[in-house]
This record gives sequence, structure tokens and C-alpha cells, in this order.
Amino acid sequence: MTSDPVRLGVAGLGRAFMLMVPSFDADTRVKLTAAAAPREESRDAFEKEYGGTGYATVEELCADPDVEAIYIATPHQMHVDHVLAAARAGKHILVEKPLAVSMEDAEVMVSAAKEAGVHLIVGPSHSFDPPVELATQLISSGKFGQLRMIQAFNYTDFLYRPRRPEELRTEEGGGVLFSQAIHQIDVVRRLAGGMAEKIYAMTGAWDPKRPTEGAFTALMNFAGGCVANMTYSGYAHFDSDIWMNNVGELGQRKSEGAYGGARRALLDLNPDDEVRLKTTRTFGSGTTIEAEHNEHFGPVIALCDRADLRLTPDGIEVFGDTERGFIEAKFGPAPRRTVLDALVDAVRHNKAPDQTGEWGLASLEVCHAILQSAETGQAVDLQRQCKTNH
Amino acid sequence: MTSDPVRLGVAGLGRAFMLMVPSFDADTRVKLTAAAAPREESRDAFEKEYGGTGYATVEELCADPDVEAIYIATPHQMHVDHVLAAARAGKHILVEKPLAVSMEDAEVMVSAAKEAGVHLIVGPSHSFDPPVELATQLISSGKFGQLRMIQAFNYTDFLYRPRRPEELRTEEGGGVLFSQAIHQIDVVRRLAGGMAEKIYAMTGAWDPKRPTEGAFTALMNFAGGCVANMTYSGYAHFDSDIWMNNVGELGQRKSEGAYGGARRALLDLNPDDEVRLKTTRTFGSGTTIEAEHNEHFGPVIALCDRADLRLTPDGIEVFGDTERGFIEAKFGPAPRRTVLDALVDAVRHNKAPDQTGEWGLASLEVCHAILQSAETGQAVDLQRQCKTNH
Ligand SMILES: NC(=O)c1ccc[n+]([C@@H]2O[C@H](COP(=O)([O-])OP(=O)(O)OC[C@H]3O[C@@H](n4cnc5c(N)ncnc54)[C@H](O)[C@@H]3O)[C@@H](O)[C@H]2O)c1
Ligand SMILES: NC(=O)c1ccc[n+]([C@@H]2O[C@H](COP(=O)([O-])OP(=O)(O)OC[C@H]3O[C@@H](n4cnc5c(N)ncnc54)[C@H](O)[C@@H]3O)[C@@H](O)[C@H]2O)c1
Repeated sequence: MTSDPVRLGVAGLGRAFMLMVPSFDADTRVKLTAAAAPREESRDAFEKEYGGTGYATVEELCADPDVEAIYIATPHQMHVDHVLAAARAGKHILVEKPLAVSMEDAEVMVSAAKEAGVHLIVGPSHSFDPPVELATQLISSGKFGQLRMIQAFNYTDFLYRPRRPEELRTEEGGGVLFSQAIHQIDVVRRLAGGMAEKIYAMTGAWDPKRPTEGAFTALMNFAGGCVANMTYSGYAHFDSDIWMNNVGELGQRKSEGAYGGARRALLDLNPDDEVRLKTTRTFGSGTTIEAEHNEHFGPVIALCDRADLRLTPDGIEVFGDTERGFIEAKFGPAPRRTVLDALVDAVRHNKAPDQTGEWGLASLEVCHAILQSAETGQAVDLQRQCKTNH
Repeated sequence: MTSDPVRLGVAGLGRAFMLMVPSFDADTRVKLTAAAAPREESRDAFEKEYGGTGYATVEELCADPDVEAIYIATPHQMHVDHVLAAARAGKHILVEKPLAVSMEDAEVMVSAAKEAGVHLIVGPSHSFDPPVELATQLISSGKFGQLRMIQAFNYTDFLYRPRRPEELRTEEGGGVLFSQAIHQIDVVRRLAGGMAEKIYAMTGAWDPKRPTEGAFTALMNFAGGCVANMTYSGYAHFDSDIWMNNVGELGQRKSEGAYGGARRALLDLNPDDEVRLKTTRTFGSGTTIEAEHNEHFGPVIALCDRADLRLTPDGIEVFGDTERGFIEAKFGPAPRRTVLDALVDAVRHNKAPDQTGEWGLASLEVCHAILQSAETGQAVDLQRQCKTNH
């Protein structure tokens, strides 16, 4: 253990937290000292595992003087209350993507953190993935000339993973925009420097049984002229991981035999059964994911004047003018190390990452603009964008 | 030889004709009886190979009473004169894509063929590829429910293949729009039934030494609600054939060692050298391409309600609700058999293919709309679209 680890409290011990467990467990720079969870089993599991304190409410967690920073991993619509509680208590904040569902909430949260003088980091998101980090550096080094276009797409089974009912209602932050587009937007904005200007998009809500957006496709312009083409489908048909070296989003090796598993698991389940199934994928349930590669969010190609960069789970393939090469992005020792780098840098060194509250608000603006463009058939101008830090 | 083969005259013995040679040579339903070419070497090579007559002009070719139909494989900007000459002479016509460069020319050509009562077919284009044909049938059978979205993209070395100077001037039909987008548009329109309504696009002309469009990205809406996402780069960097089972556009197996060849071959060439290099890739030069698979135009995914269809050089991968399958699209006996099917059906059975003059005009309209949308930043409404035949 580092002599002075960041003492972190966790709000919400669900799926998102579970996905962070391997990172916390492997990193001596951060110590989990407390958690808030409404379910007693979760609190008990947390206390047993980490020896910290389990609280029933986020307010109690925020009042714990031993906690320096709070990781907020509650459902989207609760982020606003929990961020405000943490900011009021003077705690630094790592809040799950999306920052919020509404732009109004997001604005309030950004202001509250600023007023309280605490760091607000939005993550993890796939913009933290080491290959994205590496590609961002390569692009901004200028070594390949100007960035002209980005194509990003991802075909997953997102819409058929077990859901709470509100996760299938767009107004409450359900569907692929707020949970998935937000990753792609984060990745693309990071590569292109952040300042998106305009977006034109279409969305698809094609399954009446899961009546929220399951797909979208969009063209977005950046200051400086770069264009991004973003496409996503969560309808559990084509799986673009076959073009990511058969490595899944979480860095795990995928087996072909698993095809169709998400839809099959939901067959004949009613909404209550589905919620129960979701809790089997959360903290304390015993499920683990074995990552052997960096995480990713589907194929991404960044076209520069003197090379195209293809992001893979293990690094960047460089397709240059006359030669093809590969630059490794090291994996490990545990997944999501870069997220904890950002947390430690903020809390211990007062250094903000790219993915601040303002950043998360800007990415959220793009989600809403996609919905608006799809509804109106018009391109939407973006007003709340911000730059990357470097 | 079939008892009554279609007696075909060829206008233009360049690269396009060369690519058709294996198809003509393997097909007994068509007999090459005459050709027009300005270069004597080409005419001699033709006469030696096929025993037919070599003319110096297309007008003379059109006057040959033994010719029933003419394959026009001259540069884009000449298609109009040559189609008009053929129509006036009462010959059926197979004209290379794009039908023409300007919409005005295209309209005149369609009218001329109609008045003359001759078939006008625009091809070959990749919409004739057997996997496209098969996917079109699968989609229109309704067996997978409604078609919702198509994503098509292609990353090639097009801009760095040896060119005549006008092939690098957009006004004269140069660049990727008229030569390459036209394929993608044809493929996508065929899958979606033809009736595009609106398009929003951006283009890239990123190399000042080859100052025409080398890339574009577009979103297009179809009647009935399907959306198409089309992206293309001909900048000879990323090569999307790695996602087409390492099979190239012409159905040939690709070797990794060849990376960068197109740009390397042009290094230090002046425009005259480049034109000379181009002629080494035409008829009579001895170059051949060994196709072992169907041709293709890059990755295409068609998203339907109950499956995503992925087009591969060998058939269709079906990503269904709970199972993944494969439907073969047979290759051979020679490439481009479906183009000659269309020609024979038209000339012998008075049956028009999907890819008529009206069809080619509609696809050309989309090329112009991409340029216009990119220039104005606005979506462009399409007015001259037509349906597939089935
Ligand atoms: N970055 C990622 O990889 C990733 C993955 C999954 C989810 N997420 C994000 O994490 C958030 C949570 O999603 P999830 O899938 O984990 O949902 P989940 O339902 O699995 O987990 C949410 C947890 O919050 C708890 N909770 C509810 N109200 C609470 C309260 N008042 N105080 C404390 N805890 C409370 C629930 O009991 C539950 O355990 C969402 O914003 C989602 O976008 C991120
Ligand atoms: N479908 C395909 O796969 C494909 C491939 C290449 C080209 N093309 C199309 O074919 C057409 C020709 O392109 P290309 O690459 O073969 O060019 P090219 O320059 O290789 O061939 C054109 C030929 O036309 C000849 N020609 C010029 N003027 C003529 C005239 N007045 N009469 C007769 N012949 C004349 C030239 O000598 C030359 O041999 C273009 O429209 C192009 O889009 C299609």
C-alpha cells in the first residue's frame, strides 16, 4: 500500500462498481474506505471485502470525515443528487458516465464542483482506454499531419443486457444514447481535441418490446475541419468485435459459441425477472471478467494526412504512406489504471484530466443533439463544447 | 459457343475493358466481334485475340451491321457521345459507370436510348456482385423483417493508382465521387430498393498534389425509413480489405507485403510518366488478375429487424436473433457473370436489369448531391431516384 492512498468512498455497488473492482484491488494508490448501498447484502459484502464502513445513504457516506473522494456509480438520474451531496461535503468526485441525463442537471453539477473547489471527473469512459490515450498523443504530436476524419462504430448486444425498467425509457436516460453514444462521443472528441461544432444524426428504435433508441448514426464536424462518422447498434446482431481481434469491450477474449446469449437470456422474462437477472451481474455476485487486453469501444480509424491510425485493443496500427507499423499500448497491471491515474492526479496533485465535469457536459450535449437532429431532420449546432487539456 | 451469341462491339480498350476480358473469354453467350480504339497497338491486339474488326472511331464501330450491342468503356466524359452514337445506330448499350459526368448528359442519354428503343445498362458496378444480388433477394423476401440501416465503407488506394490528368479534376469527373462513390451508391440503393430521398455529406480533398476528392462520408435516407451510412477513403492508408477476409475488390487474394505499393509506384513520376504507367495496366499489356472470390466494394452491413446481414466476398453472414449462419454466393465460373446475364437478358429476352439508364442517372444524382451537400453544409433533397425492378 502506498504510504498515503486516496481514501475513496463508493456510492452504488452495482454493475459499474463491479467492473471497477479489479482496478481498485490491483492499485495501492487508492483505498476503498466506505460505501453507500440501499441493499444490505451489498453493504455486508463490501464490509467483508474491504473492512470499510457500509452506509445506507449517500448523505451518510458524504459525512464520513475519513473519505477524501467519492466514486458515484448509481443510476444516471441519481448522479445529480449524489454529486451535489459530495461537492457540498467538500469531496472530490469521480462520477460514472453520463455526467447526468439533462443538460440543466449537468450545468448545476459543474457549478457546484467549481464552487466547492473539488475536482469532478467523469469516468470511466472508453476515452480513458490506453489505445485512445496513445492515439490522442500521436495525433496531437503532429507527426502524421492534420487529423481529417474519424470513423467510429460499434455493434454490441447492449439493448438486450438485463435492464431496470427506466433503462428502457429515453426520458429517464435509457437507451443507447446516454449509456453508449456517450463513450463513442468521448473517444472521438478526445482524438479530435474536443471542440465539436455541429452534428447531423439519425436514431433507430426498432424493437417495440424495448422502446428506446437501440441504434444511431451521425456525422459531426470539429473546429479545424475534422469530420467524425459515428455509428452504433446495440441490437445484438452483427458483433464488431470480430474486427477488434475477437476481444470484447472489457478486454476479454470472446468465444464464438456465445453468440446470441444476450437475447436468449431474456426470452420469456418479465420485467421483475429481468431486474433480478441484472443483480446477478453486480458486486458480491461472484461474476468476474478476465481482461487480457485493453478495453475498447469498437473499431475506430483516425485519418491523418500522412497515416491512418487504427485503434486495436493492444495498440495502434499505423497505416503510413509507404509502410505499415504497430505501436503498442501496454495493458495492465490491471484494467482501467488510467482512470485511477486521473483520480490520484486530481486528489493528490491538483491536476485535472481531460474528462472533467465541463468535458462530460460537452459530451452529454452531443447525446441530446443526436436526439434533436434525429427528431427534426436538421443539423444541430453545439454550444457547450470544450477542449482537451494538452 | 452458344448457337446465337450476342455480337458485342467494344468502345475503348483500356483498363475497364481489361477487367472484363476474363468474363468475356469465359462466356459463350457473348462474342466480341469488333472494337474501337484510337491506339493501333490496341486494335491489333484485339484483332489478334478475337479475330474481329478494329476500328479507329466509335462511329465506325456503330456502323458495323454485325454488331448488336456496344460495351462503352471509354473515359467518363466521352460516354455521352458514344452512347448517343450507339443509340442512333440502334445498338443496345452496356456503358461503364458512371453513366455520365453531368446530369444534363445523363438525361440526354436516357432519352436517346428510350427513343431508339434500345436497352441501356450501366455497368459493371459492384451492385452486380453476387453477394449484393443475394442480400437484395434476402432483404426483399421480408424474411428478416424491415431493413433499417445500411453501413458501407471502403478504404482503398484509389487516388494513387496511375491516372490521366483529367481523372484528378472533379469538374471533368475526376476524384472518388464519380468513379468510386458511384459503386457504393449503387450497392446501397440496390439493397434498399433504390428510392433515396435526402443526403447529407462531407468530402475531403487532402492531398494538394492530387487536388480532387479522395474521401467522403454521408448519411442518406430512403423512402420507407432506411438510413444509409456511406464512407470512403482512397488515400492508400488503412485498407479495409483486412475486414473482407483479405480479399481485394476484384476477388483476388491480397498479400500483406504489397502494402504501400500504389504510392510507391508514383514517387517521382511526372504526369506523362503516370499516363504511360496507366497504359501498362490496360488490354494487351499482359497483366491479369486472378480472382478466386466474388468482387466486392468493402464492408457492408445491412441491419434488419431480425438479423444483420454482413456481405463477404463469398456470401452473406447472417447474424440472427439467436443464431449466426452463412449463405453462400457462388463464385464463377468467371467473374462478372451477372453483368453478362443482364446483357443477354436485355438483348435476347428484352428484360431490363435493375441497373438501367434511369438507375445510373439516379446514382449519379447522389454523387452530385454529395458534392453539393459538402459545399453548402446542408442536406440535399433527391429528385431523380427510381426503384429496383423486383
Ligand atoms: N463505465 C462503465 O463501464 C459502466 C458500466 C456500467 C454502468 N455504468 C454507469 O454506472 C451507473 C450505474 O449503472 P449500473 O449498470 O451499475 O446500474 P446498477 O443498477 O447495476 O447499479 C446501480 C447501483 O446503485 C445502487 N443505488 C440505487 N440507489 C442508490 C442510492 N440512493 N444510494 C446508493 N446506491 C444506490 C443500486 O442498488 C445499484 O446497486 C450508470 O450511470 C451507468 O451509465 C458505467
Ligand atoms: N467497372 C469497373 O470495374 C471499372 C474499372 C475501371 C474503369 N471503369 C470505367 O471505365 C471507363 C474507362 O476508364 P479506364 O480506367 O478504363 O480508362 P483507360 O484510360 O484505361 O481506358 C479508356 C480507353 O478508351 C480509349 N479511348 C479514348 N478515346 C476513345 C475514342 N474516341 N474511341 C474509342 N476509344 C477511346 C483510350 O485509348 C483508352 O484505352 C471509365 O468510365 C471508368 O469509370 C470501370
